[in-house]
Amino acid sequence: MSSTYSEFVTEVQSIADISFAAGVLNWDQETYMPQGGAGLRARQLATLAGLVHERATGGKLGSLLEVLGKDVSLDEVQRCNVKYVNKQYQRALKLPREFVVEMSHTVSEALSVWQQAKPAGNFEAFAPHLEKIVNLKRRECELLGYTAHPYDALLDEFEPGLTTAEVEQLFADVRKDLVPFVKQIAQQAPHSDELLKKHYPKDKQFAFSETLLRIIGFDFGTGRQDISLHPFTINFGATDVRVTTKIDEHNLSDMLTGTIHEGGHALYEQGLPANGYGLPSGEYVSLGIHESQSRLWENNVGRSLEFCKAIMPQLQAAFPEQMNGHSANDLFQALNVVRPSLIRIMADELTYHFHIMVRFETEKALIEGSLAVKDVPGFWNSRVREYLGIDVPHHGAGCLQDVHWSHGSLGYFPTYSIGSFYAAQFFAAAEKQIDGLHEQIERGELKSLLQWLREHIHRHGKQYSARELCERITGEPLSFSYFMQYARKKYGSLYQL
Amino acid sequence: MSSTYSEFVTEVQSIADISFAAGVLNWDQETYMPQGGAGLRARQLATLAGLVHERATGGKLGSLLEVLGKDVSLDEVQRCNVKYVNKQYQRALKLPREFVVEMSHTVSEALSVWQQAKPAGNFEAFAPHLEKIVNLKRRECELLGYTAHPYDALLDEFEPGLTTAEVEQLFADVRKDLVPFVKQIAQQAPHSDELLKKHYPKDKQFAFSETLLRIIGFDFGTGRQDISLHPFTINFGATDVRVTTKIDEHNLSDMLTGTIHEGGHALYEQGLPANGYGLPSGEYVSLGIHESQSRLWENNVGRSLEFCKAIMPQLQAAFPEQMNGHSANDLFQALNVVRPSLIRIMADELTYHFHIMVRFETEKALIEGSLAVKDVPGFWNSRVREYLGIDVPHHGAGCLQDVHWSHGSLGYFPTYSIGSFYAAQFFAAAEKQIDGLHEQIERGELKSLLQWLREHIHRHGKQYSARELCERITGEPLSFSYFMQYARKKYGSLYQL
Repeated sequence: MSSTYSEFVTEVQSIADISFAAGVLNWDQETYMPQGGAGLRARQLATLAGLVHERATGGKLGSLLEVLGKDVSLDEVQRCNVKYVNKQYQRALKLPREFVVEMSHTVSEALSVWQQAKPAGNFEAFAPHLEKIVNLKRRECELLGYTAHPYDALLDEFEPGLTTAEVEQLFADVRKDLVPFVKQIAQQAPHSDELLKKHYPKDKQFAFSETLLRIIGFDFGTGRQDISLHPFTINFGATDVRVTTKIDEHNLSDMLTGTIHEGGHALYEQGLPANGYGLPSGEYVSLGIHESQSRLWENNVGRSLEFCKAIMPQLQAAFPEQMNGHSANDLFQALNVVRPSLIRIMADELTYHFHIMVRFETEKALIEGSLAVKDVPGFWNSRVREYLGIDVPHHGAGCLQDVHWSHGSLGYFPTYSIGSFYAAQFFAAAEKQIDGLHEQIERGELKSLLQWLREHIHRHGKQYSARELCERITGEPLSFSYFMQYARKKYGSLYQL
Repeated sequence: MSSTYSEFVTEVQSIADISFAAGVLNWDQETYMPQGGAGLRARQLATLAGLVHERATGGKLGSLLEVLGKDVSLDEVQRCNVKYVNKQYQRALKLPREFVVEMSHTVSEALSVWQQAKPAGNFEAFAPHLEKIVNLKRRECELLGYTAHPYDALLDEFEPGLTTAEVEQLFADVRKDLVPFVKQIAQQAPHSDELLKKHYPKDKQFAFSETLLRIIGFDFGTGRQDISLHPFTINFGATDVRVTTKIDEHNLSDMLTGTIHEGGHALYEQGLPANGYGLPSGEYVSLGIHESQSRLWENNVGRSLEFCKAIMPQLQAAFPEQMNGHSANDLFQALNVVRPSLIRIMADELTYHFHIMVRFETEKALIEGSLAVKDVPGFWNSRVREYLGIDVPHHGAGCLQDVHWSHGSLGYFPTYSIGSFYAAQFFAAAEKQIDGLHEQIERGELKSLLQWLREHIHRHGKQYSARELCERITGEPLSFSYFMQYARKKYGSLYQL
């Protein structure tokens, strides 16, 4: 290894040490920190963020990158690391310090206003802050640069290489195929999810969620689970990966699907190459690929009839009264009720994408300047009416429902849908390549599937882009057709369509 | 406030942010971190430690200190902050970088050797590492400088201003008064602590330890308790103070005394001025004063007959079978069994100081060069025979028992005894100044006592030195006589002496 490359690794991994340390502070804040610690924790996190920013945009890293950019002796992995770090570095250099500071102040103010405005449904209070954020994001697009559409610059931060045109194509397919399909389902007799709404005590749910994590292959030697208000996955390197779950004593579904979802994220993190600690070669490809792992486990595996059959005996042992007289098929039906609703995070796996579509169309219009901030509620509500067939009674359940805009995260939402679409496409490939996959799932044997994901996705870190990965695995670029096939097969049988 | 002073505060508090962040990582490591996280955690902590060291010895801080050293406009608190930060800064400058690096490598090696050597009782394996540490510490004394005795330089790190001569005087009193007093006790019929050795389930013990913390005034809004292998107190600022407890299902005493001990440390941290975050004005005075707070609560309060009376009804409610037929006096006797033993951390509150005395005499002799490392076991065992009247069967239960030397912490042990002696002297003052203190304790009312400690000790941060604080509160310097009076009164009545 060249000594410049070693120096580069040392520098990048030191920066990662500080980032991961901040991660531990964040984890603690969401799980165990006493209330009184909040003020000091904010300043400790700000100091660490400042240190990371300083080093990640510093002259030392810049000089190393310059030398390594011309170094022809680097191997493939080393070139990948230099390339991605350089991309981040160049990106950061394009944003002037005063811009970063202004953005930071703006979102910090916006967040506290949003926290009040959401429960009150008070869009007018939030509007001036959203206005500032949109203006700053539009300026960010110009600073970063783009070829076809300014929104491309924002997408690129979360899903490198994904374009607005591609997202539009995917959602055109969603509108053409999925919207009418959901309308068809709505005309059938609905299934009941009453089974999941009985009383399930917290401690027993938590114990069962650890069972679920073990079933899918989560390694408790290099990870743990705790409880938090909103479930999340976080890692401080591939050998310390943590998930949280949220428990609602009157809704078993939150824990069941939430645990498998976060578990799917965590399996990806635990499968990343440990020797790539802090380097792109040890990091996830993109948010879309990350989400593909959580969605594949949550939906393609977790909500399948086979998986319901696999876990039913353990569910019956854990909750004998609640599950008394119920079959795996009852659980399968209850976990797959399709019902248009207002809140994205409560949505079923089909109508979920309509929420993302609404958000994407709104964001795109704001960024290209075809929609004024004051017109967001009207635009939002008309789209919800169109795709979901329901009226928005209150902006808190409408365009104010999600925190992302207050964080300045525009361009993030599409990765949620992309993730599900990748999941369907990857799962279709796994079905072809793993003999008897469905029978294995029915027996609760998930090892081959995890092994397949490790082999084809996890172990590569950032070595391939999302696009390359998809083509290597499935022989073609991302296509909505796999998700639609999956939906037609599953819901066709559930609703006799 | 002068702008230079503001800059100074910003710099010192930023350094504190990084230190406290490292604290969170340490806390997590001892409580919740999965096993697999250990390797990465070590490197994350090393990176943060490096950042702290760099900034705390950096030119920026140096320039600010130089200007502020001449600034006559500073008020008393500001002068205190500049003085103590400057002291640390000057101290750090005296230790060359290669010395710090060598020490760091040496103790890291020594620690892993000690971990093997202790259970095997293999002093020969540890000796070459101790030899290196002693040589480095002797060099450190010369680098730091001292007036009377080289060991003074080491004491000063943990108990600023304390001299070897003062420690010798205190231990001369211990030898003169406490050693014969313990021999007298040994001739009486022993009390039984069987009551505490029954089976006490873990969960109930943990719940009771939270009750205990509430009784003494621990604020769960700015703190929390968890379980760890070794109990400790840690804080990330005065509004996030955490304690841990260790639970032995067959020894209630560990939890009872350990919880109150750590709770005492925590009450001090919670009482430090929050506006002195990261500054000397918001920090504890010295390890001796810190230990005085834990010992005062553990021994002077927690092991008193009055406190046993206060908690007995709650203990009986929590453990009805185990406590059946037992009185507060039984608990009092069980918590105060005096029995010379080999292991310091298991010792009763009287013979405990003999362990410290042995350690101090050994360290002092090593540092002044009157004892060779190879002769440590013989020296140690003869002292244990003399003060405790027992033979050391195994070096793991002798001179290898504690980790401190492997950390390079010589000069630390005396603060444990100093803390108990300060506690007795402070408690004697509180008895005089708080009307009906003993009756209050018997009713489980600890508010006046906590208020008194807050008023006289906690709120001052580092504004007064330990010596000044002691004279302000008690009208005289630290004296062993108060501890001896306390011991004679309590154990005189327990053993009819």
